Amino acid sequence: MSSVERQLEDLKAEITDEVPDDISISDVRYEGPELVVYTRHPKKFAQDGDLIRRLASKLRKRITVRPDPDVLSRPSEARAEIEEVIPEEAGVTDLDFHADTGEVVIEAAKPGMVIGRHGSTLREITKRVGWTPEVVRTPPIESSTVSNVRNFLKQEREERRDILERIGRQIHRRQMADEQWVRITTLGCCREVGRAAFVLSTADTRILIDCGDKPGAEGEVPYLQVPEALGAGASNLDAVVLTHAHLDHSALIPLLFKYGYDGPIYCTEPTRDLMGLLTLDYLDVAAKEGRAPPYESEMVREAIKHCIPIEYGDVTDIAPDVKLTFHNAGHILGSAVSHFHIGDGLYNVAFSGDIHYDDTRLFNGAVNEFPRVETLVMESTYGGRNDYQTDQEDAERQLVNVINEAHEKGGKVLIPAFAVGRSQEIMLVLEEAMRKGKIPEMPVHLDGMIWEATAIHTTYPEYLRDDLRDRIFHDDENPFLADYFNHIDGGEEERQEVADGEQAIVLSTSGMVTGGPIMSWLRHVGSDPDSTMVFVGYQAQGTLGRRIQNGWDEIPINDRNGGGRSNTMTMKMDVKTVDGFSGHADRQGLMNFVRTMNPRPEKVLCVHGDEKSTQDLSSALYHEFNMRTFAPKNLETFRFK
Amino acid sequence: MSSVERQLEDLKAEITDEVPDDISISDVRYEGPELVVYTRHPKKFAQDGDLIRRLASKLRKRITVRPDPDVLSRPSEARAEIEEVIPEEAGVTDLDFHADTGEVVIEAAKPGMVIGRHGSTLREITKRVGWTPEVVRTPPIESSTVSNVRNFLKQEREERRDILERIGRQIHRRQMADEQWVRITTLGCCREVGRAAFVLSTADTRILIDCGDKPGAEGEVPYLQVPEALGAGASNLDAVVLTHAHLDHSALIPLLFKYGYDGPIYCTEPTRDLMGLLTLDYLDVAAKEGRAPPYESEMVREAIKHCIPIEYGDVTDIAPDVKLTFHNAGHILGSAVSHFHIGDGLYNVAFSGDIHYDDTRLFNGAVNEFPRVETLVMESTYGGRNDYQTDQEDAERQLVNVINEAHEKGGKVLIPAFAVGRSQEIMLVLEEAMRKGKIPEMPVHLDGMIWEATAIHTTYPEYLRDDLRDRIFHDDENPFLADYFNHIDGGEEERQEVADGEQAIVLSTSGMVTGGPIMSWLRHVGSDPDSTMVFVGYQAQGTLGRRIQNGWDEIPINDRNGGGRSNTMTMKMDVKTVDGFSGHADRQGLMNFVRTMNPRPEKVLCVHGDEKSTQDLSSALYHEFNMRTFAPKNLETFRFK
Ligand SMILES: [Zn+2]
Ligand SMILES: [Zn+2]
Ligand SMILES: [Zn+2]
Ligand SMILES: [Zn+2]
Ligand SMILES: [Zn+2]
Repeated sequence: MSSVERQLEDLKAEITDEVPDDISISDVRYEGPELVVYTRHPKKFAQDGDLIRRLASKLRKRITVRPDPDVLSRPSEARAEIEEVIPEEAGVTDLDFHADTGEVVIEAAKPGMVIGRHGSTLREITKRVGWTPEVVRTPPIESSTVSNVRNFLKQEREERRDILERIGRQIHRRQMADEQWVRITTLGCCREVGRAAFVLSTADTRILIDCGDKPGAEGEVPYLQVPEALGAGASNLDAVVLTHAHLDHSALIPLLFKYGYDGPIYCTEPTRDLMGLLTLDYLDVAAKEGRAPPYESEMVREAIKHCIPIEYGDVTDIAPDVKLTFHNAGHILGSAVSHFHIGDGLYNVAFSGDIHYDDTRLFNGAVNEFPRVETLVMESTYGGRNDYQTDQEDAERQLVNVINEAHEKGGKVLIPAFAVGRSQEIMLVLEEAMRKGKIPEMPVHLDGMIWEATAIHTTYPEYLRDDLRDRIFHDDENPFLADYFNHIDGGEEERQEVADGEQAIVLSTSGMVTGGPIMSWLRHVGSDPDSTMVFVGYQAQGTLGRRIQNGWDEIPINDRNGGGRSNTMTMKMDVKTVDGFSGHADRQGLMNFVRTMNPRPEKVLCVHGDEKSTQDLSSALYHEFNMRTFAPKNLETFRFK
Repeated sequence: MSSVERQLEDLKAEITDEVPDDISISDVRYEGPELVVYTRHPKKFAQDGDLIRRLASKLRKRITVRPDPDVLSRPSEARAEIEEVIPEEAGVTDLDFHADTGEVVIEAAKPGMVIGRHGSTLREITKRVGWTPEVVRTPPIESSTVSNVRNFLKQEREERRDILERIGRQIHRRQMADEQWVRITTLGCCREVGRAAFVLSTADTRILIDCGDKPGAEGEVPYLQVPEALGAGASNLDAVVLTHAHLDHSALIPLLFKYGYDGPIYCTEPTRDLMGLLTLDYLDVAAKEGRAPPYESEMVREAIKHCIPIEYGDVTDIAPDVKLTFHNAGHILGSAVSHFHIGDGLYNVAFSGDIHYDDTRLFNGAVNEFPRVETLVMESTYGGRNDYQTDQEDAERQLVNVINEAHEKGGKVLIPAFAVGRSQEIMLVLEEAMRKGKIPEMPVHLDGMIWEATAIHTTYPEYLRDDLRDRIFHDDENPFLADYFNHIDGGEEERQEVADGEQAIVLSTSGMVTGGPIMSWLRHVGSDPDSTMVFVGYQAQGTLGRRIQNGWDEIPINDRNGGGRSNTMTMKMDVKTVDGFSGHADRQGLMNFVRTMNPRPEKVLCVHGDEKSTQDLSSALYHEFNMRTFAPKNLETFRFK
């Protein structure tokens, strides 16, 4: 009997001991980080509202109770009973029965009403039908990404169970090493922005944190081939943690599966979906640009299949000696400051991922309170001495002014924007400004992946800023459903119509004018001197966006039929830039994050910034807070304990 | 055809091209770092004294020419001819013919006379008999270690050829990585003395430098299990480099072979033999103390079989992108500062190993001139702020005084000493003092491994200080052969005789009075108030030596028959300490090593010293020379390029 088998036997005995005699426990298994308890008496289990909580706290495990398949009522009967229990206002849109696990997935517009006060409605469901309800939100805006991911996971349910069981056994294996230490190896993202990848290792466990690409620097991938990472074989890694879905953190996650990795990806649920969206687009772009993609779309599916979603604040065992907790990072939807508790009080490390310290319209500011933390690995994008940005209020005022000016000229307003995050921020600003009469009401056309990304945002309102979340919960106040917004889904024809039509604002990808529908919009309105182009995000060196910002007016434009012939368009639009809508904390925000951090860490590694930014920030933190700070290079290893 | 095959084909063509038409090249092979050229015309090859040198410099390889086995004269005939060519004064003691390689190993008391001026005698031999002569020195004092190692290697000759061929192909494989970087990972010996082990790695190559134990801290072995070392499999390592034979650097080298390592150990020839002696003794001691040895003596033989001896100053390819050069370190016989040239001028790292900066009687001071060196990894044993030691002259004067005083009292002088290094140093001091009449002439008895270690020293005089080497070359001046010295080889009986006899000096192991024959000497003379115990080396905390130094006089002593009964002996000897005979540079020596180093490195990693010593030295070097200095912890990785 393996040590895990023995452990499970012991747990089963303990649980049997703890529950009333009339509840029989038929099986106890690991599924990922959770302990799943099968019972022939799910209804009785559900009657005692506190039993699961008591068990969880006694065993110090996350516990899920499932009915033994033998005792489930027939789905057709169960469906009728469930529909009776759930109030109509909950807006159930789908019921999906999984006989293998005894779960019924309930998709509803208002999950809270399916759950009931303190889970009372859920317990009522189980009491009546035996099935264990699992609730997901009906996306208020239909998202093909979300429904594709959900359908895919439904279809792969069996394999996924096997994966989760294997991972569960891995997590709960016995600790072998008799020594204890904690190390971080930098595989990318040091003294540079891009290709984020770190290995957090102990004597027992190796965890990869992020695995991104480096935008604009093809071939500069993380140093995955060193022995600390995959050089010792993919099985050398126990887990992968993804802080957020931006490609500089996620692009090469699917590649791990091509290299034989077969373990879990821990991330939030929105990060999983956005990673799916962005990595598939990444492959698309590579194909369009004639580059060999580093992996096939099949690997994206593998990655999604291996995702274990974790919510903010949930303490999760991800290895025998490592507990992971995610906290809101304020950067993009689902972005997480990742806190690792190692050993039994041995050490604590927090990886900031990308953060925004102050509240924005979309998100609460990054969390910086932890039970304990000795070392912080911190982004430094705007860590340079002079990297102060316009604050959000000023930025919004400027945007309002720019749009009013543009409107007076009578033309269109063209805003290149990243699909994820900044587009939604701008949408919220525009919606409010129109609603409050600060700018004229006019259509806002959303092109590229913006609509889809917005749909994903509205699927996960619990990840948005609290007041925004409350508004989305009430359909009539959901700002993303405002009438101003139009999804460009009619292709070139619709664009032509818009271009020929009334005054309007167009938000379109790509954010740095390096491809995508923005190129088409340039063809339509670029030579119109009455129209205005407004940059709201950073334009990297070498991009067309940066060139336009710098005043270039001879724009190479492919023929609209994509025939490959390339013409030159003379840019006649007004060009404006509004700073201050970054998803990253500026120098002040980074300093404040550390200043108010509780507890304050002993050491900070400044990463995810160019050489100057990381060194400036490292030195400033050292001088201001007298902590040990570093600006690591790639391929270094730091020992903490 | 593999890339190595193709390379060898090309080399064969190039060599054929280069040599006169009447010399045929029958084969070209790698043997370890050397290129071996087989020819049917070895005599003609030998006639042109400059041909090999020209080839070596053209191909940038170390070249050995061997006769095609078909053209060798019969050993019986060859023997007569060789004896004719070599002058009688050379003192040939053995001729050994190896038909497989066409080599004849000539053991002679005076190898120089076998070699002849610029190798003329060797060439003459080849011209006459076809065989390639290889010369080894007849040990002036017979060493069982040296003869065991030589006999063992003779017997394993065939397997060794296979090993060398495999290693040769490994060294000359094509470089695969398209990136270049240089890293050092610390596996031990950081902020501590003991368990020296470092990994030097590039994108193509991983080299382990040293693999020692930590004296007095059982179980604290180097962190070999991490992926950077053996965690990724033993084949992850391309080569092992051993700086010197002390157990804190060598003890676990044989363990590597138990773990599946099968590659080369680069070290000097004396280091190989001393490692054999010391690791076998290490196993012995473990057995005597009832500890499970970490490996069997079979593994020591494996290690010796995989040794590739390198002489000081020889630049040797040890990987596609790494050249190794050893330089005298002045610490013990064969100890080497190890210089690594990486890539084509990419980077240079020197590992000091253990060093003595000033000349001693035994050794020239450590070499600190290199073509280039950017990073120095430096020992810091006496790196602490106040770690200044008595200089050698003062130390010798003190020793002379102590012995004269002791002599006047009429008793014996008992000197506990380490077998390797310090014993020979003391022998040289005593020999000169007696010869010059500074102390009375009296017998100096050598007990434990001291005699054997001395024999190994006299086998390799080219590794000793230049004037000492010259004296050893002339038997009548070899100080180690002085009449004063007596090897205790008659066990307890002889010790009893000595104890009962005239005044004498006894040098005996162990150096810290933790076991070995010194315990027996304590029984014999410990309670004699007319006798004197003189400490000439560091006595570690917790050793009996340290306790005696501190004035303890109740000494636990096992019964002389080893019956296990333990008695207490009342120590009545005088106890004296003479400082200044350390094998390590003191604080001043370490600073001077860097001050006069040419070129001065940009970075220094201070290792092999306790926390205070490494940090003090690191800080002093930084302040005095404005270089980047570090006191690493174990398990860290530094990136240099
Ligand atoms: Zn980001
Ligand atoms: Zn980022
Ligand atoms: Zn032989
Ligand atoms: Zn040493
Ligand atoms: Zn040492």
